[in-house]
Amino acid sequence: MYLEHIESPADVRALPASVMPALCAEIRDAIIASSAKVGGHVGPNLGIVELTVALHRVFRSPADKLVFDVSHQTYAHKMLTGRAWNYLDPTRMGTLSGFASPVESEHDHFSMGHTSTSVSLAAGLARARDLAGERYDVVAVIGDGSLSGGLAFEGLDDVARLGTGLIVVVNDNEWSISQNQGGLYAALAHLRETGGNAPDNPFRALGLDYAYVENGNDEQALESALANLRGCERPVVLHVHTRKGLGFAPAEADEESWHHVGPFDPATGEKLAGGRASGGIVAAPPATYADITGEFLLSRMSSDQRLIAISSATPYMMGLTAARRAAAGRQFVDVGIAEEHAVTLAAGLATGGAHPVYGVYGTFLQRAYDQIWHDVCLNAAPVTILVFGSSAFGTTDATHLGFYDIAMLGDMPGLTYLAPTCREEYLAMLDWACGYEGGPVAIRVPGAGVVSRPDVELPTDGFASGMPEIVHEGDDDVAILALGATLPLGRRVAERLAAADVDAELVNPRFACGIDRDWVRGLAGRFRVVVTLEDGVRDGGFGSRVACVLGPTGARVRCFGLTHGFPDRYEPHELLEACGMTEENVTRETLALLGR
Amino acid sequence: MYLEHIESPADVRALPASVMPALCAEIRDAIIASSAKVGGHVGPNLGIVELTVALHRVFRSPADKLVFDVSHQTYAHKMLTGRAWNYLDPTRMGTLSGFASPVESEHDHFSMGHTSTSVSLAAGLARARDLAGERYDVVAVIGDGSLSGGLAFEGLDDVARLGTGLIVVVNDNEWSISQNQGGLYAALAHLRETGGNAPDNPFRALGLDYAYVENGNDEQALESALANLRGCERPVVLHVHTRKGLGFAPAEADEESWHHVGPFDPATGEKLAGGRASGGIVAAPPATYADITGEFLLSRMSSDQRLIAISSATPYMMGLTAARRAAAGRQFVDVGIAEEHAVTLAAGLATGGAHPVYGVYGTFLQRAYDQIWHDVCLNAAPVTILVFGSSAFGTTDATHLGFYDIAMLGDMPGLTYLAPTCREEYLAMLDWACGYEGGPVAIRVPGAGVVSRPDVELPTDGFASGMPEIVHEGDDDVAILALGATLPLGRRVAERLAAADVDAELVNPRFACGIDRDWVRGLAGRFRVVVTLEDGVRDGGFGSRVACVLGPTGARVRCFGLTHGFPDRYEPHELLEACGMTEENVTRETLALLGR
Repeated sequence: MYLEHIESPADVRALPASVMPALCAEIRDAIIASSAKVGGHVGPNLGIVELTVALHRVFRSPADKLVFDVSHQTYAHKMLTGRAWNYLDPTRMGTLSGFASPVESEHDHFSMGHTSTSVSLAAGLARARDLAGERYDVVAVIGDGSLSGGLAFEGLDDVARLGTGLIVVVNDNEWSISQNQGGLYAALAHLRETGGNAPDNPFRALGLDYAYVENGNDEQALESALANLRGCERPVVLHVHTRKGLGFAPAEADEESWHHVGPFDPATGEKLAGGRASGGIVAAPPATYADITGEFLLSRMSSDQRLIAISSATPYMMGLTAARRAAAGRQFVDVGIAEEHAVTLAAGLATGGAHPVYGVYGTFLQRAYDQIWHDVCLNAAPVTILVFGSSAFGTTDATHLGFYDIAMLGDMPGLTYLAPTCREEYLAMLDWACGYEGGPVAIRVPGAGVVSRPDVELPTDGFASGMPEIVHEGDDDVAILALGATLPLGRRVAERLAAADVDAELVNPRFACGIDRDWVRGLAGRFRVVVTLEDGVRDGGFGSRVACVLGPTGARVRCFGLTHGFPDRYEPHELLEACGMTEENVTRETLALLGR
Repeated sequence: MYLEHIESPADVRALPASVMPALCAEIRDAIIASSAKVGGHVGPNLGIVELTVALHRVFRSPADKLVFDVSHQTYAHKMLTGRAWNYLDPTRMGTLSGFASPVESEHDHFSMGHTSTSVSLAAGLARARDLAGERYDVVAVIGDGSLSGGLAFEGLDDVARLGTGLIVVVNDNEWSISQNQGGLYAALAHLRETGGNAPDNPFRALGLDYAYVENGNDEQALESALANLRGCERPVVLHVHTRKGLGFAPAEADEESWHHVGPFDPATGEKLAGGRASGGIVAAPPATYADITGEFLLSRMSSDQRLIAISSATPYMMGLTAARRAAAGRQFVDVGIAEEHAVTLAAGLATGGAHPVYGVYGTFLQRAYDQIWHDVCLNAAPVTILVFGSSAFGTTDATHLGFYDIAMLGDMPGLTYLAPTCREEYLAMLDWACGYEGGPVAIRVPGAGVVSRPDVELPTDGFASGMPEIVHEGDDDVAILALGATLPLGRRVAERLAAADVDAELVNPRFACGIDRDWVRGLAGRFRVVVTLEDGVRDGGFGSRVACVLGPTGARVRCFGLTHGFPDRYEPHELLEACGMTEENVTRETLALLGR
C-alpha cells in the first residue's frame, strides 16, 4: 500500500508515474471506507482524486498555494498532506474537519465551506505575492457548481487583469449540489462537446487564457496539462472534465443524493441511520420538516397557480424531491448556487403578482443580506423565505453555523420573522405567509426535529399582529419567553420553578423579529423578572431586543442564547450547556434573580 | 416646447419622429438646469436621454415593464411619465426622489439604488407574467458599471434559460462610477471596436441572443433596434454604446467627478457649496475624512510596501484621487462594483501577508455580509475595513441609509468595530489597524463632519482591549455612553444634567462592537442609570448589547438610537428628534429615570 507511507506531497512526487493508478485506487477506497463509517461528501471527492494527485505532483505545496473552493472535496488533498490516517484508521475516521483547515495543516490556507470564494482568495494570495516580490504559483480549484455564484464571476473578472500568473482549475463534473442550472452550464457543455473549442468561450470572453482536458480522471493527462501552466505569467483557466462519484457505482448512478451522505454500507451503498449533519447538506429522510414542506407546497401549488418555489441548488432541503419538482413544473425554479439572485428574483416575482417561496439554509442566506434589505424589504415585497438548519442542532461545522439568522434578519426593516414551536404552528404560519400580501415573511423552520403540539393556540387572524401565545398564565412575577424550538426547555424550567413554588408565565413569542413592542413593554408591569430563551446568538438576537425595550423599566431581564464565535464540530448539548442553556442552570439563575 | 406638454409616454409616441432631437435637447437642458440647482447624477442621465425616449416610443409602459438598474439615471424616464415639472419648475426641482419610486408613479416598479439588481428583478417580473399567462415585454436597462456586480451575472446566467422573452439593454458608456475595471470591460471594448462582432462574446457565451447599436445617442437607431425586439420570445441582450455626460462640456471632459454632483453653475460647470448628499456618491471636498484618509494611506504606503488600498468603484470616497492612485501604483486596486470580491480578495491578501485596507460606504458593504462573516472573520484575517457614510448625516435616501452598519457588523464574530469620536482618534485607530495582526478591524468613519479633540485620551497599547475612554468621571449614579459622533450630544446632555446638579459620567465607548463585557457589567455596581447614544439603529445596535449585558442587574438602561425603517430624503435633525435624540429629551428622560 502506498497511501499509508505518504507523509507529505514530496512522497507523492517521489513515486513513479506508473503507480499513480494504484495510488488513486487506494485513495478512492479510503474515501468510501471513511465516508461509509462517518458520512461525507462522497461524490465530489471521488471525482477529484486524479486531479488532486496531479496537482500535488506538479506544484510544491505549501510554497505553491492550492485553494479548493468550498473545500468539501479535499479528502484526497488531506490524504496527500500528512492526514491519510483520518481516512485509513477506523478508530480515527471523522476526527478531522470535513473542510480545509489551517489549524490542521500548513497546506490549507483558509477555513471555508461556502461556495464561489476560491478565485477571489487566490487573487488575494497572488497580489500579496506580487507586492512582496516573491514567486510561487497560486491555484484555485473550483467546481462547476460554484461558478454560478456571483462572487466567482467577480473574482474571474478581476483576475483577468491581474497581469501576473494565477491558475484557475474548473473541475467540471456536470453537477452542482443538485443539477446544474443556467446559461453558463450550457456553455460548459458546449466546451465539453467540442474538446474546448466552442465559440463564445465564457472564460476567454473575460480575457483569460483557457485550456481543456477531456479526461479529468486521467492523472497523467492532468499532470501534463498542469505542468504546462507551472510558473505561468498570465491568468489561465484549465477546464477539466471529471466524473462525480467515479469508482462507486451507487454514487455514479445517483449524483444528487450522493453529494453528501451519512453513514452507509460500503458494499451496497445502503444508507444507515444516525449520521451527523455536516456541511449543510444532508439528504432528507421522510417525516421531517423537509417532507412536511414539500408536501404542503405541492398541494398549495395546485390551488394557487401563482405560487412558485425557489431553490438555490438544494431543493430536497425543502422537500422538493425529483418527483415533486416534476409535478411542480414551472412552479418550481432552481437557480443553482446563486442566493443573491434567488432573493432578488423573488422580489421581482412578488412585485409581478406571483407568490414566491424561497427555501434556503440560514448559513447560505447570509449571501443575500443586501438583497433582502434592498430588494425585498425596501419594496415591502410579499416574499416568503423558509430558513432551514437554523439551530444549534443544525450543521455543527464552523463554516456552516446555523444560529446567526435571528441577528441577521433582525436588521431587516419590515420583515416578519416567525419562529414556530411545532409542526402545527409551522404549517399555519406557512399557509398564512403564502397568502399574505402585507410584506415579506421569513419562517425559521425548527432545526431540532419535528415536534407536535396538538393544543397549540393558533391566532384566527394570521400572524401579522406581533402577538405571542401565552402557553401558561402564571401567578408569580416571572415570565419565560421561550422562542421556537426552545419551548420544551422553557416548559421544563417552568416545571422546576413550579416545584419551587414559583408559578411562572410561559410564553411562545412566535416572532423572532417583529414582536409587538407594547406587549413587551407591558411585561414590566406584571413581572419583576423576564427570561428569554433562543436557539440562536444572544447578542443582536430576540432576547437582546426584549432587553432593550425593558431596559428603562427596572425589570430584570436575563437573555439566554449562544455566544458569538465559531465553534467547530461541536456537540450541541455541550454548546448549550456552555452558554448556560440547561434546565438546571436557567432555573437556578431565574430563582436567583427572584431572590429565592 | 414639447416636454412641458408630455403627461405620459403616449404623448411621446404621438409626436412625429422628426421632433425627437428637439425633445432630447429639451430633456438635456432640464437635466442640467435642475441638477445645477439641486445636484444630481448629471453624467449618467445625460448619456441615456435618447435611449429613454426610444424605450418609451417602442414599449407601452406601464403594461410593458421597464426596470432601470440602480435607477439613478431615470430623470428622462420621469420626465416622460408625468413628472417633468420636477425638472422644469425651479420652485419644485428636487422634490421627487432621485431614484425610481413606485410611490411616485405606476411606471416605476421598484424602489432601488444599489447596483446590479435589474436583471434579477426583470427575471422575476417575466416569470410572474408567464405564470399568469399574460403577455407583455419586460426590459432591464443596466449600465456597464453595474455588470461587474456578481448579482448581475447570476441574473444573466438564469435569464439565459428562461425560455420566454426578456430584453436586457446594456447601456455601455465606458464608465463605472470611477473608471471601469476588469475583464468584462475589455470584452465590451472589443465588442465596441468590432461593431458587436468580436469573438468570445460574453453574452452569447451564456446563451443569450445579442445585438449591438454603435450610436446609442441616435434615437432613431435605437427605436429601430428596440422595435425588432418587441414581443421577442427569447432572452436577448441589446448592447448600446452611449456617451456619459453628452451635451454638457464639463461632464464630457471629466466623467468621474460629474457622475454625481451638488449644485453648480450651469454656464460654467463651477461647483457650488451646500449640496445635499444623495445616492451615496458625493465628490469629496478637501479637509474631509476622505482627504485625511487618502493622505494617511499614501504616507503609510511608502513605509509599508505591503499596504494595499482596495476600492469598489468609489476611490475618492477614501481620498484616493487620481493623483494619489497614480502615486500608489500597485498598492491600490479598484475592483469595480464588486463588494463581495473586494472583501474576499482582502481576506486572501491578508492571509498572503499583505495589509489590505478596504474603504466602502456602509450601505454597499451590505453586499458583502457573508464574505465578512465567512472569509474574513472565520479566518481571523487581519483586514481593515473603513466604513464611510454611516450616520444619520450620511445619505438620506431610503435606498442608501447609512445607519444599519453597527447592527450588521455586530453579527460578525471576532470583528472589532471602532467608532472614533474625532480626527485624532480616527487617525490613531487607522494607524493601529493597519499594523494589527490579531484579526479584522472595521472603523466607522464619522459621518457628521470633521471634529477635533486635541485632549482625546488615546490608549498607549492600541485598540484591542475593548476598553472605553472616560471623558468625564462623574460623582452621581448615571453614566452616558456616547458612541462616536454622538459624543457632542452626550457632552451637552452632561452639561444640562450638571445644571440640574447631577454629575454624570461621560464615556466614549470607542467600540461599536467589541466593548469589554466585564467593563459593561461593572457599570451596574456604580450607576443606577445607564444611557447609551448612537448614530445608528437602536435594535441590534451598540446600546442593545449594553442593555443585554446589564439586563439581569436591575440597572435602568435607556438606549437611544434610530428606529428601524426606511425614511426617505429625511432631514437628519428631524429624524433624530423623532427618535428622542435631542439634548432636551435625553436630559429629560435621564432625569426621569433618576427619579428627579
